[in-house]
Amino acid sequence: MDSEEIRITFQPSGRSVYVLPGTSLLEAGALAGVILQTPCGGRGTCGKCRVKIVRGAPPPPAAPSPLSAREKEAGWRLACQCRAGRELVVEVPAESTFESPHQILVSDTGAKGRFDPTARKMRFRLNPPAQDDERSDLARLCDAVGRDVEIGYDLKRALPGLLRAHNWSGTAVLSGRELIGLEAGDTTARVFGAAFDMGTTTVVGTLFSLADGRECGVASRVNPQVPFGDDVLSRIRRVREEHSALAQLQELIVEAINGILETLCEEAGVSPADVYDVSAAGNSTMQQILCGLDPSALGEVPFVQVFDRAQAFPAARLGLKTNPGARLYVFPQIGGFVGGDTVAGMVAARLDRWDRPVLFVDIGTNGEIVVARDGEMLAASTAAGPAFEGARIRQGMRAAAGAIEKVIVGDDVVLNVIGNVKPAGLCGTALIDAAAGLLRRGILDATGRILSAEEAPAGLPAALRARLVAEDGATRFVLVRAEHSATGQDISLWPRDVRELQLAAGAIRAGINLLLKRAGLTPGDLGAVLLAGAFGNFIRRSNARRIGMLPQIPCDRIRFIGNAASLGAKLVLLSADERRYASEMRDRTRHVDLSREPGFQSEFAEAMLYPEADFDHCGEE
Amino acid sequence: MDSEEIRITFQPSGRSVYVLPGTSLLEAGALAGVILQTPCGGRGTCGKCRVKIVRGAPPPPAAPSPLSAREKEAGWRLACQCRAGRELVVEVPAESTFESPHQILVSDTGAKGRFDPTARKMRFRLNPPAQDDERSDLARLCDAVGRDVEIGYDLKRALPGLLRAHNWSGTAVLSGRELIGLEAGDTTARVFGAAFDMGTTTVVGTLFSLADGRECGVASRVNPQVPFGDDVLSRIRRVREEHSALAQLQELIVEAINGILETLCEEAGVSPADVYDVSAAGNSTMQQILCGLDPSALGEVPFVQVFDRAQAFPAARLGLKTNPGARLYVFPQIGGFVGGDTVAGMVAARLDRWDRPVLFVDIGTNGEIVVARDGEMLAASTAAGPAFEGARIRQGMRAAAGAIEKVIVGDDVVLNVIGNVKPAGLCGTALIDAAAGLLRRGILDATGRILSAEEAPAGLPAALRARLVAEDGATRFVLVRAEHSATGQDISLWPRDVRELQLAAGAIRAGINLLLKRAGLTPGDLGAVLLAGAFGNFIRRSNARRIGMLPQIPCDRIRFIGNAASLGAKLVLLSADERRYASEMRDRTRHVDLSREPGFQSEFAEAMLYPEADFDHCGEE
Repeated sequence: MDSEEIRITFQPSGRSVYVLPGTSLLEAGALAGVILQTPCGGRGTCGKCRVKIVRGAPPPPAAPSPLSAREKEAGWRLACQCRAGRELVVEVPAESTFESPHQILVSDTGAKGRFDPTARKMRFRLNPPAQDDERSDLARLCDAVGRDVEIGYDLKRALPGLLRAHNWSGTAVLSGRELIGLEAGDTTARVFGAAFDMGTTTVVGTLFSLADGRECGVASRVNPQVPFGDDVLSRIRRVREEHSALAQLQELIVEAINGILETLCEEAGVSPADVYDVSAAGNSTMQQILCGLDPSALGEVPFVQVFDRAQAFPAARLGLKTNPGARLYVFPQIGGFVGGDTVAGMVAARLDRWDRPVLFVDIGTNGEIVVARDGEMLAASTAAGPAFEGARIRQGMRAAAGAIEKVIVGDDVVLNVIGNVKPAGLCGTALIDAAAGLLRRGILDATGRILSAEEAPAGLPAALRARLVAEDGATRFVLVRAEHSATGQDISLWPRDVRELQLAAGAIRAGINLLLKRAGLTPGDLGAVLLAGAFGNFIRRSNARRIGMLPQIPCDRIRFIGNAASLGAKLVLLSADERRYASEMRDRTRHVDLSREPGFQSEFAEAMLYPEADFDHCGEE
Repeated sequence: MDSEEIRITFQPSGRSVYVLPGTSLLEAGALAGVILQTPCGGRGTCGKCRVKIVRGAPPPPAAPSPLSAREKEAGWRLACQCRAGRELVVEVPAESTFESPHQILVSDTGAKGRFDPTARKMRFRLNPPAQDDERSDLARLCDAVGRDVEIGYDLKRALPGLLRAHNWSGTAVLSGRELIGLEAGDTTARVFGAAFDMGTTTVVGTLFSLADGRECGVASRVNPQVPFGDDVLSRIRRVREEHSALAQLQELIVEAINGILETLCEEAGVSPADVYDVSAAGNSTMQQILCGLDPSALGEVPFVQVFDRAQAFPAARLGLKTNPGARLYVFPQIGGFVGGDTVAGMVAARLDRWDRPVLFVDIGTNGEIVVARDGEMLAASTAAGPAFEGARIRQGMRAAAGAIEKVIVGDDVVLNVIGNVKPAGLCGTALIDAAAGLLRRGILDATGRILSAEEAPAGLPAALRARLVAEDGATRFVLVRAEHSATGQDISLWPRDVRELQLAAGAIRAGINLLLKRAGLTPGDLGAVLLAGAFGNFIRRSNARRIGMLPQIPCDRIRFIGNAASLGAKLVLLSADERRYASEMRDRTRHVDLSREPGFQSEFAEAMLYPEADFDHCGEE
């Protein structure tokens, strides 16, 4: 193997990753899905990313630090400054992570009161009717739970009997202004909700106690719609071809959510009947299919959505196995393929609250791009294609066991492979790393051509030059020799792969450029570039910038913000304010249809060319 | 027969009644259910009760009249001044009747805009999506029908397909802010609603076009709950004894409403699927049973209702055979046995808009009494018992064929019998007439004792004295001799009947007195006494006042306002404003539980005594 990997374990989640020596804990955390706060951009000045090394702590760096001597002695380090040298166990305090809704709920306003879930329980004890108190049953209840509470037919029917059978007391379950349940006795401690991030490929759910905001568990499943098509376009096509496919696809996603709910409840010892609220964030197609709303119009110009405002449905109506009164909240959508996951991400990133203009990028098969300036936002989606997921790459694969996920081109090539097995192919992040590395070494020219061993710069280390192999009149760059590969064949970066990457990165970059222009901004005006989404978390910022996918701005302004859509889904589950905020964010965002922008084709063409030179180094390798 | 009845036919309804010669057309109209406007109290000064005699017009009276000579010549007469002499056909213009909602809608504000039904249709034609107009389907629709329109799950699902199948146009059906239907093409002309007056004994429905407010028909049925008990208390008892009775009773009233709807639709050539709104007014028990809300708590102190605010349910949820999206509106309730019918009546009577204090009385098995002063109201119900419906009266009967409905005690007795047949018994109005007549003749004393032939005043005509028959140590007054009666027996007013009447009238009067006291009023302060309800329409005001049931105020302030509950139900069907008004009226009304009022027993005892003397004559005999 080309790497000697080091195991880093993060507490309290217990997740482990294997990284190359010298990898910062910040980056290792990102690999493990632990997104740390880095307002200073990882320069070691703000002290927000502090973690405690409980086993294997390296000596603290000599550089000035926001940490006290006593803290350093106790094992506290800044994750951005601390590099892995041997196996470590790292304890991550909640306040250092970006992903804890609690932390955001507190940090953002510095005040309490942001925990105000839409679904909540209220204990009531009514005075029984008396000669001097002949209020109606409904008035009596509403005087206790809220005069403007709306009550549905079934609960109205049940009310008189329930009040009299249970001594005029009980627990009311509310969803906003709606009464969704009446229970005997005091059940106020048993109120739960689940937040779902519905990806095209993976569905992740998180269970929360809505009594105190405590996270009770996370579970995920592969999106069972995958057999209907890897990407949303193929699923839409299926619905267009055969209308019954909509009901099938809806059933599949509902089953996945039910399965996750079941697992979550079982593991947390919670009854599904005590789940009263569900929030879900997904792209336009996923959200519409979940709601049973025909996504066919997303399959043709001008890509029309069924809804734009947030939706709330009785969960039972969709077949969710929750309390029968539970509600499902689905995020507002912006337009075309800019859906609820983007709004959820915008909510999590507080896009309107930055002092300077901000660029938000969620990279996947579709890249969603948002530019925020003075509280107003422009949003677009751009079809990056599946290159980042390894598709259309000759030896590409998903980020699964056996995938090369990191490539460092030094005097020779150093690789990191997922899962401690022989490499079988390369995933999106490695593709970016390889291209950036070859560019820096002068092996790849500005047009994306891999130079032959003969054309390569004079000073190129022999080990690298030896990896340039001529084939069919072009050159491939060997990353893994056949003898080290799981397939028994070389694993190479092929000329065609570079082209695919140029197309994918170019599409994103062209989108970014166009939105910046529309907003009257240049990259230099940006206070931050926020990278969201699973893929965004794993890329090396300097490499993504080197191949031109990200604008040329200093690394300290390029920040990982983790799975922002998932965080947004949690936020709206835990706070009704966040739902209002989500609606507000949508209303302040204008959708830009890139395909209709006159400048897009030329921007795209231009973005295909690699930038001339590097900018700064992000300390990521 | 004691009477030579004259047939009076009213157009356009075509209803006929038989009345004694000299009966005013105002009173004849009341018998036929045609309630004319009499703001001047029937003194012939306001000219509001004008009707046109199309056949048999008597010569116009010489007295000064608001009618011009030309109008008189054309057959126009004031109904209050014109007395029946021979068979007549009378045409009643809509503006003279109190019962036409249209007339009220116009007269009350003198302006348009009061026809604003909650259920309405709206034609829409949307621009199809285009590259420069990629609004979501829902936003596109809402931009046309209202941005704040709420849309349920099923319609959201149907929307994309419907819009695309029908060229982006159609008809939206709205109920308030809710979208309740989407239809292809232009169906705006086909929107209907029905208003129901759910009496304990009879259910009456009226079909309206909600496109233009036109009345399309009236139909009624006996309330099929009658086998469960004549009055609401016995029906409540049944539910308390056996919980399944609630579902049975609900089913029965729903079936009655469905039957009436079917008849109405058939006769008007309307499809039940085009009925989108239903309003219903009834007493607390009837309303709660219709809604399936357990009325058991109305069967015991402190008589608690399930709801007090207006209710709106999906009609289909209750089993109504209307359009599946139709809504049912049920009136707010005030407290105890003061239910939605009273609120409906208060709405129709505009109880808060009179310059002087007003007394509203709806007489039935329960008497509902409302005193309005300066826009604030006090309401009570009083158990008058079934005497007015002929029950507990020895030879009493309902106001059906064969019932004596009117008694005039002159030199002898003159009677009016319903249906031109031999008399079989007497109904409530005749009971009041007889008691008042005997009081005036000095045959009945202030305590309610019928004097014997020997005790009767010296000047009493022989024919009357001959009717005083001693029996079992008391005296009965013979109304019909055996040879003229359908039963072959005398029909008499019995001592016990007088007692029952005293109890019934006394209960109402005690309630009136108590509410007046609570409001700080004396009868003299009242600007009007409004008599509502079927029974109220048929009594002779002077006689009801003579027996002490109504306060001692001039007849011109005692007005018939017809079936106010039914009118209220029509008003809320035709105008959303009226629904807000109904809620307002309820909020401004305080319920007074008479049984808990310390003064009630003594008021009741006092009201049992007949007033000393008569007041004025209402020109009713």
